[in-house]
Amino acid sequence: MAQGVLHLVRSNGSLMTSRTGVELVVQRIASRSAKPGVDLLGAVFSTNVHDLVADPEVDVILELIGGEGLAKDLIESALAAGKPVVTANKAVIAAHGNQLLAGGNVPLRFEAAVAGAIPIIQSLRQGLAANRIDAIYGIINGTCNYMLTVMEEEGLAFEEVLAQAQALGYAEADPAFDIQGTDAAHKLTILAALGFGTSYDFSALYVEGITQIAAEDIQYAKELGFKIKHLGIAVHSDAGLETRVHPALVPESALLASVNGVMNAVQVVSDGAGETLFSGPGAGGAATASAVLADVLSLGSAIAGQSGAAAQRQNQNQDKPKAGPAPAISRVAMDDIASACYLRIPTVDRPGVFAQVASALSAHSISIEAVIQKEQPASDASVSIVIMTNRVVESVVNAALKELSALDTVVGEITRIRVAPTH
Amino acid sequence: MAQGVLHLVRSNGSLMTSRTGVELVVQRIASRSAKPGVDLLGAVFSTNVHDLVADPEVDVILELIGGEGLAKDLIESALAAGKPVVTANKAVIAAHGNQLLAGGNVPLRFEAAVAGAIPIIQSLRQGLAANRIDAIYGIINGTCNYMLTVMEEEGLAFEEVLAQAQALGYAEADPAFDIQGTDAAHKLTILAALGFGTSYDFSALYVEGITQIAAEDIQYAKELGFKIKHLGIAVHSDAGLETRVHPALVPESALLASVNGVMNAVQVVSDGAGETLFSGPGAGGAATASAVLADVLSLGSAIAGQSGAAAQRQNQNQDKPKAGPAPAISRVAMDDIASACYLRIPTVDRPGVFAQVASALSAHSISIEAVIQKEQPASDASVSIVIMTNRVVESVVNAALKELSALDTVVGEITRIRVAPTH
Repeated sequence: MAQGVLHLVRSNGSLMTSRTGVELVVQRIASRSAKPGVDLLGAVFSTNVHDLVADPEVDVILELIGGEGLAKDLIESALAAGKPVVTANKAVIAAHGNQLLAGGNVPLRFEAAVAGAIPIIQSLRQGLAANRIDAIYGIINGTCNYMLTVMEEEGLAFEEVLAQAQALGYAEADPAFDIQGTDAAHKLTILAALGFGTSYDFSALYVEGITQIAAEDIQYAKELGFKIKHLGIAVHSDAGLETRVHPALVPESALLASVNGVMNAVQVVSDGAGETLFSGPGAGGAATASAVLADVLSLGSAIAGQSGAAAQRQNQNQDKPKAGPAPAISRVAMDDIASACYLRIPTVDRPGVFAQVASALSAHSISIEAVIQKEQPASDASVSIVIMTNRVVESVVNAALKELSALDTVVGEITRIRVAPTH
Repeated sequence: MAQGVLHLVRSNGSLMTSRTGVELVVQRIASRSAKPGVDLLGAVFSTNVHDLVADPEVDVILELIGGEGLAKDLIESALAAGKPVVTANKAVIAAHGNQLLAGGNVPLRFEAAVAGAIPIIQSLRQGLAANRIDAIYGIINGTCNYMLTVMEEEGLAFEEVLAQAQALGYAEADPAFDIQGTDAAHKLTILAALGFGTSYDFSALYVEGITQIAAEDIQYAKELGFKIKHLGIAVHSDAGLETRVHPALVPESALLASVNGVMNAVQVVSDGAGETLFSGPGAGGAATASAVLADVLSLGSAIAGQSGAAAQRQNQNQDKPKAGPAPAISRVAMDDIASACYLRIPTVDRPGVFAQVASALSAHSISIEAVIQKEQPASDASVSIVIMTNRVVESVVNAALKELSALDTVVGEITRIRVAPTH
């Protein structure tokens, strides 16, 4: 990540200066490991990150370590020393954002923490600042989006595509962090805090990954007019704020449905600006560097153009709400959230099974909006009944699924994929 | 437009304050016509716009008049009096941007002038400030995009859709400004100036509208895997900067191809951030108000957080390049731009005509990449030969089209639609 920043400063440094009036000087670089074999642009190198804080020539500190241990230490000591920090570290912000941003006197910026190159943080803070935000929908994990796209385009199974993604470097050797939804949940925690003025509360999110999605789900969804996307969803209604990360059916005609591969996108629905969407590469050294340097240049403009005290006031403006208490927003429990659902129910291939399933759903007042039932049984002689339900509260669907699962005609795990809300 | 601003201030004023620390007070409203019958939020009303400049309580002036006469006067007198101006007026900026922004000591902001609610100006200035911009592609006229979308979805003729758009308020009674490309060209002038650091030079643009697009072109394009979009295109290469507005074939898989109806979108291709896309409503009172108020809040933050002199320095940072001369960028003449082309050639229905057409193209070293020739003749007994060419320089295509048009087997106007460049 640091290399991407160095590369962009080297190639575009003078362009940045002509655009913004800010001249970037890479004063110091610190790394726990050995000095990297790249052009450090004349910076002093050391293996102690706290040297960055101690150097009086350093105006802004870039935390590009990752993880929560040393990275958090560095951010804390920099802020305590009055030095603005730019970080790409979503885990630290999602877990410790409330604490790290509590003081608010020294700027802490994190454009690169969500959706890579996309200036979504700035857009929420400034570009859309006049709006009441109603909803945020994000394709915010490139690994999941890449895998779902390839599963759709090539009809491959989850495990095959995962191996392919790992070979291409789009998935880690241990992919759990991405494919189980944790990474997307970190990012949604940040988007929700900024969009709705709430606290950074990772634990309030419902989180589900893409591991249960089969190639056939993608095909069935297509027959029904949907694509399956792994979404971060934050919706504010009279009931409160719902924040959840899970695979979702998105209508094929929606712009989000056309965001493919490793690209990320965040759709923001607000009262004035309506439906706005921001897309771009969600990861990669150059994309992250673009976002990191946007933060640095913004801080640099403030430092260059202002006296010290005024700079802090101005930056404080952008980092936390200052006037009046933020309205308390209650969180909606996952059990209380209503969604239309796609259900794929593996059953024995026998007459009367569909009626049995339909009657179980009906007993919970769940109605069936569409059905797909194929003739040919799967290799294990089971057949899939695919059902689209009406919009039903989560707790009711859960109860119905429990009952369905207990039927001896149901011979495997039921797949439930929620339909994304629409505005 | 002013009503949209008043509405958003009324409903979200306290939210804006809690987010940014800026409290908005609508101090004065001026209109040449009678006092509007809406809640003016306690503002003083007058029919002389220059009263806004004279009022010492007014910190920021919003120019929402439109047109170039009085609007330009107001902007000039406000800037001369040291009052920052926010405008939604693309015509004034496109035509007089160089002059109005020349001083640069007093901020002049115009987020709302391009692509309505989309914070594209801010994204070019700040979010992508670390990047070398390589290309900008914009769907920046909602009327054109709406018409092309309906022509595609309903197979209707241009004139029918235009009447429909006028009935719905998506096209003006005199639609020339939109459908002939002038409005999009104003916006592209602004995007090019910001993205590439060039002057505001409306006259440097090649401009073509959508009036020659027939429903059959949209269908043929679809068969070839493309959608037709009216695009503003600015591409920077070693040859210089090309700036052009015309209908273009966009691959169906491109995200831009999925931006439909009255929505706008701007795709920015840059060296660090890669392909980023920003979409949203391009017009409408609320969308424009969102962008206008984003500018006002940004100026308000600067005014609130700074001493006067520092505020001006800081704002100057954002309004024009300050350090070092902007690199001179030569413009590429339209004749020198190379595009693959879609050609629809109406011919008599007679053996040997295709060979004649192919040989005329071949004489200009234009090769044929794909052909569609339908059996059934049109009502006038002509048939359409549809050809996709290789990438050919404009002047060569023009010469070939001139020669083709002169053939006595070619019985109508040839339609030429360029394929959008790809990165």
